[in-house]
Amino acid sequence: MTTTDLHRYMAEAWPAKEAFYAPDRFDVLRPGFCRYRYTVGNEDFRPGGTVSGPTMMWLADVGTYALLLAHLGDAALAVTTSLSIDFLRRPVGPQMVADTELVKLGRNLAVCRVKIASASVDEAPNMDKPEAVSSVTYSLSLLSAHT
Amino acid sequence: MTTTDLHRYMAEAWPAKEAFYAPDRFDVLRPGFCRYRYTVGNEDFRPGGTVSGPTMMWLADVGTYALLLAHLGDAALAVTTSLSIDFLRRPVGPQMVADTELVKLGRNLAVCRVKIASASVDEAPNMDKPEAVSSVTYSLSLLSAHT
Amino acid sequence: MTTTDLHRYMAEAWPAKEAFYAPDRFDVLRPGFCRYRYTVGNEDFRPGGTVSGPTMMWLADVGTYALLLAHLGDAALAVTTSLSIDFLRRPVGPQMVADTELVKLGRNLAVCRVKIASASVDEAPNMDKPEAVSSVTYSLSLLSAHT
Amino acid sequence: MTTTDLHRYMAEAWPAKEAFYAPDRFDVLRPGFCRYRYTVGNEDFRPGGTVSGPTMMWLADVGTYALLLAHLGDAALAVTTSLSIDFLRRPVGPQMVADTELVKLGRNLAVCRVKIASASVDEAPNMDKPEAVSSVTYSLSLLSAHT
Repeated sequence: MTTTDLHRYMAEAWPAKEAFYAPDRFDVLRPGFCRYRYTVGNEDFRPGGTVSGPTMMWLADVGTYALLLAHLGDAALAVTTSLSIDFLRRPVGPQMVADTELVKLGRNLAVCRVKIASASVDEAPNMDKPEAVSSVTYSLSLLSAHT
Repeated sequence: MTTTDLHRYMAEAWPAKEAFYAPDRFDVLRPGFCRYRYTVGNEDFRPGGTVSGPTMMWLADVGTYALLLAHLGDAALAVTTSLSIDFLRRPVGPQMVADTELVKLGRNLAVCRVKIASASVDEAPNMDKPEAVSSVTYSLSLLSAHT
Repeated sequence: MTTTDLHRYMAEAWPAKEAFYAPDRFDVLRPGFCRYRYTVGNEDFRPGGTVSGPTMMWLADVGTYALLLAHLGDAALAVTTSLSIDFLRRPVGPQMVADTELVKLGRNLAVCRVKIASASVDEAPNMDKPEAVSSVTYSLSLLSAHT
Repeated sequence: MTTTDLHRYMAEAWPAKEAFYAPDRFDVLRPGFCRYRYTVGNEDFRPGGTVSGPTMMWLADVGTYALLLAHLGDAALAVTTSLSIDFLRRPVGPQMVADTELVKLGRNLAVCRVKIASASVDEAPNMDKPEAVSSVTYSLSLLSAHT
């Protein structure tokens, strides 16, 4: 799937979230990897100007979901099985960039690794010093996941 | 801290999030434990009527943050160090209840265990069949966490 | 399965590990729960008299494996999919007790929660102050796990 | 520290484990990274010829411990705070190689990322298809970790 396909798919499957999957949100989308960019809003900050944990976890989940959707097409049926995240440094924005790498794509499970770092507007982040790293596992069939 | 103290604290420290810490959000708040209740909104659902992973992770984080704040007072300075969550069953709402238990309160780190389950409005959830279980670690000093 | 069945099964399937599954290793084995007891050996200690992390992780894995085997019989085919563990306090022995609870038994995945605490010989541990807590996920079919 | 320094240190601090830290165990040891090689023994296998989960977790822990020791010298006082591991593919040996990368070295916490893959004797593994990936957090002061 291209970013345009991905956006069209989301616009149908999940209209309320369409904007999050707009083509210009993705710096990169290719087999096995995507780079997703998000401009931090006021509601994402904790006191002290730190980007909140839930925003960081949401980024890990969005990057994984988009990458699996691009690979599988029907990932709308995929569900998160587990997620673990380590917060390493203080994320400050103004943009957050999430690099998602496909680590395993099996029959039942897919595992992605996500690195998240702050960036200036439309500039590259320093991914050697990520602010959070996450491992996300998706179950690839809704039926099998919830028995 | 009582739920009233907690709410007043948040209203000052983090006005934008005040409503999430209103006293009536807490069924229980006592040393070592809190039960937090949230009415799921449209934006929390994934296609198919499943409460989204980010909403579940947010609940784990909010429950932990509130419990630590109630214990320590200055937990506004605490930051999440790591979080892991297992999604076990399909969460459907209409309310989600998060039970947070303090597992360890050390000098540098605090660890909480959170169970999350769906509930009917103002009724008790079945916590023997949680839909997600999470372990959340907070670092208790902003200075030491981000060096 | 009773502890005797479990032991007999292991003696056939995995003779080298038979001793670890001897009936007297289990204080409790019942549907959904087991309590496993282990006497710490010299090789399990780190400098300073702390029981090593690998020994603690091994206990989490053994407790889960035994509980799933007792439930499913053919769990010799089950493989660990993921494990996360938080080390909370210093484990010192002389015995370590692992309480394993079945959190979910699905068609593809099983999730167990393990609490581990030190105990005096043949005495009950204080499980309100565990030294480690772990979440272990097993995939229930070897074929599907490694595609 | 060089591999020789590391070995000498371990021989004094923890003689029973000395052999695991012999210089020839390390293909690489440099700032921020080490590659550790282990020849799988009979006791490491599960039925079916799969390297056991505890052996894989032990490798993640050993790689992290060695790398922190080489960086800090006094890491004998460091303790594991948490570990999470995803098992992705079936590990078969005959050697297992663990690549450990230092993700964060803070004042209180250090976080390493470990990839583990099978290899033929003295040959390079295919780290694009690791059999397990792990995130390991160490607390850098024994006193602060166990309060």
